[in-house]
Amino acid sequence: MSATARDPAEGAGARRRAEALDAADELAGFRDRFVVADPSIVYLDGNSLGRLPKAAVDRIRDEAERGWGDRLVRAWDEGWMELAARIGDTIGTRLLGARAGEVVVGESTTVNFYKLCTAAIRARPGRTVVVTDRDNFQTDRYVAEGVAAANGLELRWIDADMVNGPQPADVAAALDDTVALVTLSHVAYRTSAIAEMAAITAMAHEAGALTVWDLSHAAGSVPVDLTGAGADLAVGCTYKYLNGGPGAPAFLYVRSELQPELRQPIWGWLGRRDPFEMAQGFDPAGGLTAFLSGTPPILSMVPIEEGVGMLVEAGLDRLRAKGIALTEFAVELFDAWLAPLGFVLGCPRDPRRRGSHVLFRHDRAKELYEALLGRGVVADYREPQGVRVGLAPLTTRFVDVHDGLATLAELAS
Amino acid sequence: MSATARDPAEGAGARRRAEALDAADELAGFRDRFVVADPSIVYLDGNSLGRLPKAAVDRIRDEAERGWGDRLVRAWDEGWMELAARIGDTIGTRLLGARAGEVVVGESTTVNFYKLCTAAIRARPGRTVVVTDRDNFQTDRYVAEGVAAANGLELRWIDADMVNGPQPADVAAALDDTVALVTLSHVAYRTSAIAEMAAITAMAHEAGALTVWDLSHAAGSVPVDLTGAGADLAVGCTYKYLNGGPGAPAFLYVRSELQPELRQPIWGWLGRRDPFEMAQGFDPAGGLTAFLSGTPPILSMVPIEEGVGMLVEAGLDRLRAKGIALTEFAVELFDAWLAPLGFVLGCPRDPRRRGSHVLFRHDRAKELYEALLGRGVVADYREPQGVRVGLAPLTTRFVDVHDGLATLAELAS
Repeated sequence: MSATARDPAEGAGARRRAEALDAADELAGFRDRFVVADPSIVYLDGNSLGRLPKAAVDRIRDEAERGWGDRLVRAWDEGWMELAARIGDTIGTRLLGARAGEVVVGESTTVNFYKLCTAAIRARPGRTVVVTDRDNFQTDRYVAEGVAAANGLELRWIDADMVNGPQPADVAAALDDTVALVTLSHVAYRTSAIAEMAAITAMAHEAGALTVWDLSHAAGSVPVDLTGAGADLAVGCTYKYLNGGPGAPAFLYVRSELQPELRQPIWGWLGRRDPFEMAQGFDPAGGLTAFLSGTPPILSMVPIEEGVGMLVEAGLDRLRAKGIALTEFAVELFDAWLAPLGFVLGCPRDPRRRGSHVLFRHDRAKELYEALLGRGVVADYREPQGVRVGLAPLTTRFVDVHDGLATLAELAS
Repeated sequence: MSATARDPAEGAGARRRAEALDAADELAGFRDRFVVADPSIVYLDGNSLGRLPKAAVDRIRDEAERGWGDRLVRAWDEGWMELAARIGDTIGTRLLGARAGEVVVGESTTVNFYKLCTAAIRARPGRTVVVTDRDNFQTDRYVAEGVAAANGLELRWIDADMVNGPQPADVAAALDDTVALVTLSHVAYRTSAIAEMAAITAMAHEAGALTVWDLSHAAGSVPVDLTGAGADLAVGCTYKYLNGGPGAPAFLYVRSELQPELRQPIWGWLGRRDPFEMAQGFDPAGGLTAFLSGTPPILSMVPIEEGVGMLVEAGLDRLRAKGIALTEFAVELFDAWLAPLGFVLGCPRDPRRRGSHVLFRHDRAKELYEALLGRGVVADYREPQGVRVGLAPLTTRFVDVHDGLATLAELAS
């Protein structure tokens, strides 16, 4: 990968700095525990699909050949049935500041979000408004629309700052005693902006509303304190920073105190007390189990445990510190190379206000994203006009940031 | 595995017959294309979890190592995105008598059933009743309860014959112009009874109601003709006779003519027109795509294609013929060995009226099921008092039927 074409001397200096940062990186060794099939690829999209842990290769094979192939249906009683709660507890207690029994894995993020939004709305009968952000991730917006329509509610949109996302004051302006639910992403999928979970949750509670947080771009990349923030409900994706694999089932969080009160709408067998009694009438299981519905996809679920295990081992503080260092380095190269080429910083400049990805806007962003792909730099394109660069702390090197942005600068010159 | 303890000579004769039937079985060779890790196990539960196709072992490894590990996020554009429709089309057109674009794979059976029941009810505004069978599979009953409650409808239960399941006359008695939806299983999970899809669907239509069929125990075991039966909607499981693996995503069917009219409730991004434009407002995609919601679990989805491929190769006529031969042999051994020990046949005696599993009732069924497990015979226990014996045509031998039932007779003596 070449250094920037604009200033070879500066580029060479920047690459030496990147190499020095990698040499000093305490987490650098983790990259060796992931499959890097083609080292010539600069992968800057770990927040779309995190890399494959080497341990997951063995684990998938084991669950397929020993579990499915050998133990067959008996494997459900030999561990598969507990996976959803066990992986959920690890994610919840070690990465999200939840208590045991508050996070479980299963179904897609979309389905979990639907369940929790519906449960929240039905727990606030008579209230008629759902508040969300017009820049929220599309599946959240669309599901919220559908849930609101089905329950006779209306959506109240926050038109937040395009870079810094919804602020407490924006939420305050949208709140009144008609609001049943406020739902936002903790880290914005596009701009990387962090929404203030504790302050916003407190405001929502003050107004008598419940909150559903989407943690898809937050889990494993920034410290989350669901308990400390008084959060009610949350969902999140496991195939981004948690390295769970393509379409791995999502997690959902329900604060313990709310579990007896809330009722999710999809009354499947795994959410019932004693499901194998095949008894008449839906009698919800105790605790979080009542929020389950169907049978979980085992081969897509087991890799999550391997990915999450490494995040726990690395520690959220070190992950966050490296995430900040990576995005700071990216912003520094943006200032040096990209701003002069007409790029605009699309994410917050304050590292405390952004997650582990950055966004660079440019008139020709889509074309540049495609040209990057052709040069072996895998980033992402996000409407409108954004090149999104994901910097998963466990697997991204400073030289990747350097090489990817140098190529981008070269292509835009 | 010993022959029956009751009559060794008869048992030995029966085993020779089983061996002769296996020797003459045109489909016998398919068993070699599945992993049989422990040949001492008699597996009679292929309708809970079908065996692992050898080709699936390679396919899973390939999607993990080459797809996820090497291609990473690019793999979505290199085939993953089309999997749901492609596998759905194969299942639909080759196994279910559907037309292309009417079956798609994704989410759990429970979630798909929820989507289609909700869509059906909302397409019949003003109607207040959902009809189903008190012996229907529990997740169907519980979801129907939840959907009815959420939409202000009531359930009208058919109390069908415990062996032969709901008949057209039972459905006729439950129908009137208040009924929005009739939902039944095509093959009953416990008794194996086949419900008459064409006749019942015609009656439901006559009354102005829609139908949702659960094909979980029918797909791949009996010929299904959704188009010929005029069926509206259906769901089904892929981890039973389709050999898709533990928790593999389910399929759903929506008749072409109904696709523009019906609206499913979970408005996820993959159901929207141009999901990556991240545009405002949910604008459902055309056709069946609008019935999708979240991201599918790839590693749990790819094995389905391998399992279904073998079913297609074997051909439904031959599968059905062998399924009947297997269940007929099981019923013959029941008459000879089990009936004298106090067992009662819990499935229809007429092979045209049952699927590919059989049910034997006994006061000590649960204890006998557990004793079977201890002897290496994996069957299933189903409340109340039923030993369920699943005879997946591609992987079950006549000697398995013999050895399993001989052991059951020995244990019950």
